[in-house]
Amino acid sequence: MPWLGASQETDDSPASDYDGGVSDRLHRQLAFILEADKLKAIERRTPLVDNSRQENSAEHSWHLALAAVTLIEYAPEGTDLLHALQLVTVHDLVEVDAGDTFAYDAAQHESKEARELAAAERIFGLLPPDVGARLRGWWSEFEAMQTPSARFANALDRLQPLLLNMHSGGGSWRSHRIARSQVVHRMSPIQLWMPAVWPFVLDTIDRACAAGLIVEE
Amino acid sequence: MPWLGASQETDDSPASDYDGGVSDRLHRQLAFILEADKLKAIERRTPLVDNSRQENSAEHSWHLALAAVTLIEYAPEGTDLLHALQLVTVHDLVEVDAGDTFAYDAAQHESKEARELAAAERIFGLLPPDVGARLRGWWSEFEAMQTPSARFANALDRLQPLLLNMHSGGGSWRSHRIARSQVVHRMSPIQLWMPAVWPFVLDTIDRACAAGLIVEE
Repeated sequence: MPWLGASQETDDSPASDYDGGVSDRLHRQLAFILEADKLKAIERRTPLVDNSRQENSAEHSWHLALAAVTLIEYAPEGTDLLHALQLVTVHDLVEVDAGDTFAYDAAQHESKEARELAAAERIFGLLPPDVGARLRGWWSEFEAMQTPSARFANALDRLQPLLLNMHSGGGSWRSHRIARSQVVHRMSPIQLWMPAVWPFVLDTIDRACAAGLIVEE
Repeated sequence: MPWLGASQETDDSPASDYDGGVSDRLHRQLAFILEADKLKAIERRTPLVDNSRQENSAEHSWHLALAAVTLIEYAPEGTDLLHALQLVTVHDLVEVDAGDTFAYDAAQHESKEARELAAAERIFGLLPPDVGARLRGWWSEFEAMQTPSARFANALDRLQPLLLNMHSGGGSWRSHRIARSQVVHRMSPIQLWMPAVWPFVLDTIDRACAAGLIVEE
């Protein structure tokens, strides 16, 4: 993107209040937004509900935002909806470099942290330092699962694939022969942080087992 | 989705605090989230930056949320970031029924309002009435462009396709032989509501004209 990095905009621009300092800052912000476009090409293991293709991480992030505004009443006490939306918006950005790590792949998970830290360094580093630090902080907070908003966001990040797997006919559960105990463990943040939704989750798992979509042990 | 609408969950559920009332409400919320999955199949005219395919409206909505958190410092006075994120998250949902209306198609725009009103009635009507009214209100507010947050969201909804068209080699400008005056008109909310970004937009249009991506008149 040579054009976005170019500095001659000020010469061509008809606006008198367009100085070089503002321009460089804005250009870094726009370059970051453009780089983030690559998240639309990061394929997850979960299919769309109509099973037409795999979901990508960008549309998944949007789906979590929609789930957050729809299900905020079930969030842990102290959850701030704005903050939860900020967290889900940036939570998968590191996948632009690090790729999507399949939830049920233990080996991949061992290298996940190092891969994602390097990615965070590069991707949030594209931004002006103050903005980059803010967004990177949200990503770290999501990962750490220590605040109410991060716990809500993580619970949604477990619930949404459950819905998609169940309604697409098994999705990644079926294609990877996932066992009931693995799913229950993966969904446990919902039990902890959205307990009102947990009976629904257990019922879904029961039905998926009965239908042969999850391996009953 | 017969399973989500079923009412026997309470019988199977191991949780004692899982009563029929909560269950029906939660089920409507989850059914709405599942229905919204269809937005991932709504194709826009704008391509991804790498030109590999057209963007869909779900990942576009996410990209606007990311742009909102990145560019909030350029928003109109009075903008509330939470509210802007709520607006961009729901702003295209009606396209699940009404499809995407191409920004530069005047004929399509004539029928847009009626098509989208019917869609809003059905889609937000899936939700419990209080939640449905809230989300539908955000969609109306985005469309009306009267509040600072809605103006910010609309300006981003113009800026993001400009970035994608420019960096994918012309995108929908080129494929539909769009003229300079059409683009300037389409981008005018940025001039009004994110004036600090306007010189960048004009410069981009100049470059796109010079490169033959936009028709110079």
